[in-house]
Amino acid sequence: MSKPYIRLDKSKAAVLMVDHQTGLLSLVRDFEPDRFKNNVLALADLAEYFQLPTILTTSFEDGPNGPLVPELKEKFPDAPYIARPGQINAWDNEDFVRAVADTGRKQLIIAGVVTEVCVAFPALSAIENGYDVFVVTDASGTFNDVTRHSAWSRMAEAGAQLMTWFGVACELHRDWRNDVEGLGTLFSNHIPDYRNLITSYNTMTGQK
Amino acid sequence: MSKPYIRLDKSKAAVLMVDHQTGLLSLVRDFEPDRFKNNVLALADLAEYFQLPTILTTSFEDGPNGPLVPELKEKFPDAPYIARPGQINAWDNEDFVRAVADTGRKQLIIAGVVTEVCVAFPALSAIENGYDVFVVTDASGTFNDVTRHSAWSRMAEAGAQLMTWFGVACELHRDWRNDVEGLGTLFSNHIPDYRNLITSYNTMTGQK
Amino acid sequence: MSKPYIRLDKSKAAVLMVDHQTGLLSLVRDFEPDRFKNNVLALADLAEYFQLPTILTTSFEDGPNGPLVPELKEKFPDAPYIARPGQINAWDNEDFVRAVADTGRKQLIIAGVVTEVCVAFPALSAIENGYDVFVVTDASGTFNDVTRHSAWSRMAEAGAQLMTWFGVACELHRDWRNDVEGLGTLFSNHIPDYRNLITSYNTMTGQK
Amino acid sequence: MSKPYIRLDKSKAAVLMVDHQTGLLSLVRDFEPDRFKNNVLALADLAEYFQLPTILTTSFEDGPNGPLVPELKEKFPDAPYIARPGQINAWDNEDFVRAVADTGRKQLIIAGVVTEVCVAFPALSAIENGYDVFVVTDASGTFNDVTRHSAWSRMAEAGAQLMTWFGVACELHRDWRNDVEGLGTLFSNHIPDYRNLITSYNTMTGQK
Amino acid sequence: MSKPYIRLDKSKAAVLMVDHQTGLLSLVRDFEPDRFKNNVLALADLAEYFQLPTILTTSFEDGPNGPLVPELKEKFPDAPYIARPGQINAWDNEDFVRAVADTGRKQLIIAGVVTEVCVAFPALSAIENGYDVFVVTDASGTFNDVTRHSAWSRMAEAGAQLMTWFGVACELHRDWRNDVEGLGTLFSNHIPDYRNLITSYNTMTGQK
Amino acid sequence: MSKPYIRLDKSKAAVLMVDHQTGLLSLVRDFEPDRFKNNVLALADLAEYFQLPTILTTSFEDGPNGPLVPELKEKFPDAPYIARPGQINAWDNEDFVRAVADTGRKQLIIAGVVTEVCVAFPALSAIENGYDVFVVTDASGTFNDVTRHSAWSRMAEAGAQLMTWFGVACELHRDWRNDVEGLGTLFSNHIPDYRNLITSYNTMTGQK
Amino acid sequence: MSKPYIRLDKSKAAVLMVDHQTGLLSLVRDFEPDRFKNNVLALADLAEYFQLPTILTTSFEDGPNGPLVPELKEKFPDAPYIARPGQINAWDNEDFVRAVADTGRKQLIIAGVVTEVCVAFPALSAIENGYDVFVVTDASGTFNDVTRHSAWSRMAEAGAQLMTWFGVACELHRDWRNDVEGLGTLFSNHIPDYRNLITSYNTMTGQK
Amino acid sequence: MSKPYIRLDKSKAAVLMVDHQTGLLSLVRDFEPDRFKNNVLALADLAEYFQLPTILTTSFEDGPNGPLVPELKEKFPDAPYIARPGQINAWDNEDFVRAVADTGRKQLIIAGVVTEVCVAFPALSAIENGYDVFVVTDASGTFNDVTRHSAWSRMAEAGAQLMTWFGVACELHRDWRNDVEGLGTLFSNHIPDYRNLITSYNTMTGQK
Repeated sequence: MSKPYIRLDKSKAAVLMVDHQTGLLSLVRDFEPDRFKNNVLALADLAEYFQLPTILTTSFEDGPNGPLVPELKEKFPDAPYIARPGQINAWDNEDFVRAVADTGRKQLIIAGVVTEVCVAFPALSAIENGYDVFVVTDASGTFNDVTRHSAWSRMAEAGAQLMTWFGVACELHRDWRNDVEGLGTLFSNHIPDYRNLITSYNTMTGQK
Repeated sequence: MSKPYIRLDKSKAAVLMVDHQTGLLSLVRDFEPDRFKNNVLALADLAEYFQLPTILTTSFEDGPNGPLVPELKEKFPDAPYIARPGQINAWDNEDFVRAVADTGRKQLIIAGVVTEVCVAFPALSAIENGYDVFVVTDASGTFNDVTRHSAWSRMAEAGAQLMTWFGVACELHRDWRNDVEGLGTLFSNHIPDYRNLITSYNTMTGQK
Repeated sequence: MSKPYIRLDKSKAAVLMVDHQTGLLSLVRDFEPDRFKNNVLALADLAEYFQLPTILTTSFEDGPNGPLVPELKEKFPDAPYIARPGQINAWDNEDFVRAVADTGRKQLIIAGVVTEVCVAFPALSAIENGYDVFVVTDASGTFNDVTRHSAWSRMAEAGAQLMTWFGVACELHRDWRNDVEGLGTLFSNHIPDYRNLITSYNTMTGQK
Repeated sequence: MSKPYIRLDKSKAAVLMVDHQTGLLSLVRDFEPDRFKNNVLALADLAEYFQLPTILTTSFEDGPNGPLVPELKEKFPDAPYIARPGQINAWDNEDFVRAVADTGRKQLIIAGVVTEVCVAFPALSAIENGYDVFVVTDASGTFNDVTRHSAWSRMAEAGAQLMTWFGVACELHRDWRNDVEGLGTLFSNHIPDYRNLITSYNTMTGQK
Repeated sequence: MSKPYIRLDKSKAAVLMVDHQTGLLSLVRDFEPDRFKNNVLALADLAEYFQLPTILTTSFEDGPNGPLVPELKEKFPDAPYIARPGQINAWDNEDFVRAVADTGRKQLIIAGVVTEVCVAFPALSAIENGYDVFVVTDASGTFNDVTRHSAWSRMAEAGAQLMTWFGVACELHRDWRNDVEGLGTLFSNHIPDYRNLITSYNTMTGQK
Repeated sequence: MSKPYIRLDKSKAAVLMVDHQTGLLSLVRDFEPDRFKNNVLALADLAEYFQLPTILTTSFEDGPNGPLVPELKEKFPDAPYIARPGQINAWDNEDFVRAVADTGRKQLIIAGVVTEVCVAFPALSAIENGYDVFVVTDASGTFNDVTRHSAWSRMAEAGAQLMTWFGVACELHRDWRNDVEGLGTLFSNHIPDYRNLITSYNTMTGQK
Repeated sequence: MSKPYIRLDKSKAAVLMVDHQTGLLSLVRDFEPDRFKNNVLALADLAEYFQLPTILTTSFEDGPNGPLVPELKEKFPDAPYIARPGQINAWDNEDFVRAVADTGRKQLIIAGVVTEVCVAFPALSAIENGYDVFVVTDASGTFNDVTRHSAWSRMAEAGAQLMTWFGVACELHRDWRNDVEGLGTLFSNHIPDYRNLITSYNTMTGQK
Repeated sequence: MSKPYIRLDKSKAAVLMVDHQTGLLSLVRDFEPDRFKNNVLALADLAEYFQLPTILTTSFEDGPNGPLVPELKEKFPDAPYIARPGQINAWDNEDFVRAVADTGRKQLIIAGVVTEVCVAFPALSAIENGYDVFVVTDASGTFNDVTRHSAWSRMAEAGAQLMTWFGVACELHRDWRNDVEGLGTLFSNHIPDYRNLITSYNTMTGQK
């Protein structure tokens, strides 16, 4: 009846950001652009904040798919960056698989564009290879609700855990006391309602 | 092909209300505020009505998250109240776990804000520790439909049963004859359509 | 290019609540029941708070339409109460028209069920008779969005102003300093988000 | 500030049902089929109930557009039936215009498929020719919300009044006492919620 | 990887219609009333058409919940009719369980109001008792999408198969040649688009 | 009460297609891409079919906005093509205004991307200059529903008529007998449901 | 924890297109017609592009269901074409089962109309018979979201994988380098946003 | 038939930002928080970019409504800042009216929270006083769609023009050549799709 709760651990997790490219982003229509951009950058910020090994990869970036969004390049200047020459499933690229293995992490946090291909394919491959996979649903975009639902169903049935960037951050952090200000800043930067709460709080209590 | 039906039992169940705080409630956008408030209070009323052991907990209530909503404090003046100093997952707080154990109940009815964190984390931990978990989906709120869906998927895959306050009340009550008026009042106070039915009925049949 | 702004004035306005009956309410499907009930009671509370002459009327209340919801009867025990024997348009009932005239008010705030009949018909008649009409859209309910839209279009084209209970309250009150606590209580009772703001504020600033 | 309220009058109104044909109905996607069929039949029933002169017309019924739905043929066996040989705007057909004139009515209640063509064109022509036009929005269907909105905007700006079959019935009937049972039957046959109210009422009060 | 396909069989199936009462129907808001009525009657018609043993049951029908909708009473005058004195889960009523057993059928097709209680509870009990359960999702209604989703999730996880009345009819019928006219009539009476196809077809091919 | 019906006339109308450029199209999110592309091409096809003078214009096509979609270039190889060097409102470009004047037409059918700028600005300018303006709402796209609604409101208040490509085609054609096959082909190419009706019809009646 | 990833392989897969008939298509309302047509043709194009064995089947095509859409007939002139005389589940037709077996493929890609019957029944039968089933959710249509959800749930629970035509194409292709132009053309023909990216790219880089 | 097009002019326009306070923002539910924040900041950026006189005002900022969002304070350190002591309609505050008059501008661009009060009241007052009013619909938020629609209807009927920040920026700028980079930066910072287009363009054409 009960089973072990596989819980994200900042010493075991790595982040894979797959194909967040300027051209492909015009295909994403299951999120409003404002929100989606915010979610992707929030995931990047949390990867940096928790110092998780992060791997970037792109598909055909010299063609119509366009380059990786510059914000990601700038945030992770030293991250492994695998510009795949043609493989659609990143896991079919040996450099990518090796980069993942080199992190020494067994928990993979994956997000990308589009969900049913660039996220689902490596997620399924990683599960098959014994990794625990956590899909960041709100930093992964696709054409519409049908494609999204199909991708989520396929991944969940295979054993991936569906999460969001906020849930990932909270599960990694465990306890506010580890760093109140750091987590608060992450939330304030990416959750307008939270920023408002903090501003109100500081004003009302006379804090800065 | 058939399996035992784990059914809520008022002698076995306890209620955990997690982080229904005035600040955090401004983050809830997958329910309209009128409805969500009603659902939370309905769950509180049913906990009181069925005399279920109830545990309240909050996260960082002296900061921007704000205090517990006053209605819950007032309804359960003697309930264990664990103001967590920092743990995000209530199950990481020993006082909370002990309070749950002290109820002697094995069926945990959980609701909270936000769903993918304050509900999902303790739900997953409780399942791992051998409890039967019933998530009250309509008294648990979060940012949007994507975060909601991800949280529900993760909990359902882990074995939690998704229910609503109305289903919980009906499964606990078993038979109207146990107390027609009591259950009727609970419904009348929280389901406007039901109140209208009762008013019409009383008027048409000349009852008071 | 500019025209006079017809502005609600608490010395000129009256409230007409038309056919909020327990049976008819089951026809209302363009609002969730929780919210609709709240909106209707908020309008009633503001009528009482601003001491506006209020008129209640019902259609066929001894039949399937059911009685007026008890909350309205209780709140306005001394208000003119016209149980129409058959007229669908309340304005076709002489007692109703006389009750309106007897208020001496020229600004009519109208809400009712269902919007395209019980609200629109008297609204159109009142405009024809020289009154200024303000329709409270969120305290008026109907079958669905098509009927709602048709009713709003017909009334707006005829010169009715579409408002909501919150806008009505604010336009009547003019200045918070007229009674901060009174208006705050009205909002706190009917806007959960506002109540949360107030609770947070009082807690953070150490007020009661 | 005030203007005359042009109100439907059963001695002045006629009904025009335009192009409710079996093929064209497959184009209607701004209503669910169950509801749309019900609305069209409700309008037909009210035309019969109030004994309004009714005119049927079709466009190209020997081709892919298909025949008039049989229910309408059967209900109005003696109504003028203009099978237009090609005119898209029914008002461009002399037989149709003459049939309208022959009714001697000045208030035209129009519904049809599709809204922005088969309804809007004759509606605009009729207004130009001095008729008062009442569009039955919920018995008129079209491809999607954009086409619907465009058609409603064009007609309302030109002076047509947007109504629904329920509003039309109520405005024509004026007073329940004119025939309680007749109107009740019309509603009971086309509004499931109303039928339920009546059944409950009859059961509770011991009526048949 | 493959598992046996449990397929509805008209010699093995029975239909349970639970609590389709005039009062309770006013609580159903996850379907439009026109469509829901149609779906329930379609299920009743198919039960009759395939001569499936059918059991009717109600909850507290002398109170505000109201009587069973008359159409069901009339269609199944000789069916077992269990007016439960108080049990919320129909399976807690011995007469009901016995009536089910007396059909000798092992496949139970269940629909009712409201989904998470009147359908889910007996469905879960029946599965526990070794029956194969097929829930007719579109003839089962509830308050909103959250309650619906929670109920579907709970039943599907327990092993119930989610179907719709159309799927049920097709799976029972197996082959059009068993009776083209019968099945065609069933569809024509409850699927307006299908009726239109048939009318067009008959007209175009000169059939009656 | 009545006013002249300004009706599209193929001898008086011209078509203006404004800024349907490959880059700008990625901003359009109030239509699904499949449908929007279809609508734009349908408008182009009808312009060609009715031999309406057509003017193409683009904004900054050498930059990120991208080139005009190739289908439009190919369909109107000889149309005036004004690549505006910087003017946002096409009407601020003298070449464009002159090209419009040179058509000798007084009815302007306008569509473009994005609605509140590239359509609304020239529409408002054209009205001010005495033209009758017909906005093709479903061949004009923008960011979301709020921007769409604002644009429609501003244009309708100024006197523009909101139409759709289908309504435009029907109003221009007047009578099917002018060319049954031509109009049928236009519809068949852009309305899948209509194509299906025609295929069914031809098959059932044995036509080719 | 990990399980094998069953991955589409172009040497192992076959495509089954079930009942895409002109009459039945008028029943499909969970997709807009423009998009659904595009999805079905995209699936057909990919079947052709990857040279997958393809089987066509229809149900009662001489009656109201209408003929197979002509585009499919034309694309697969030599494909097995099983016009079923009456069987609703294609798998109940021996010719169909034999045609599937004759392909020698174990991976079945299935799409059809309507989802809960024409797709779900053969999908469940195929799984029972040891095939791996991949349902193309966006090339399969049905009445509404409830029927869709029920069908997807039933198939997913039985082990079918839910995919979309785009995911299928990508999983079959594996590596862009296998044929950049071929896959690009497939996407360009069926994804307007992708076509726009390519056009922009070619223009900006001076390619043709 | 034609009327003058009142067009925003950067030498005639001023911006009024009303009550964008941290507490009140928790009431805004007709926009997602990510988008709404972006829209408000985009309006602020355009006000700064076009050097429009800008006036800030707040309501009761020492109470639960909370302080003005800090981003606005920082952007307009020298703008008139009217902290209203109690007036709900900013136009009832003499300092505010004088500040508006002191700008010498006749075109007022207004946005605020909540739409039907803080925006609508001063908008109606300003129109009455001879100003031309442009409401920025997407930088104005409120409780839900009903309150939004009512507010938009009331303002549009009174003569306000509904626009969005993007339309305002384009109408003010008139011609890209006035400053390509400036406008491009404004769009790039607030329209993720536009930023992607620019990044793709620069990469593909080898620009920086």
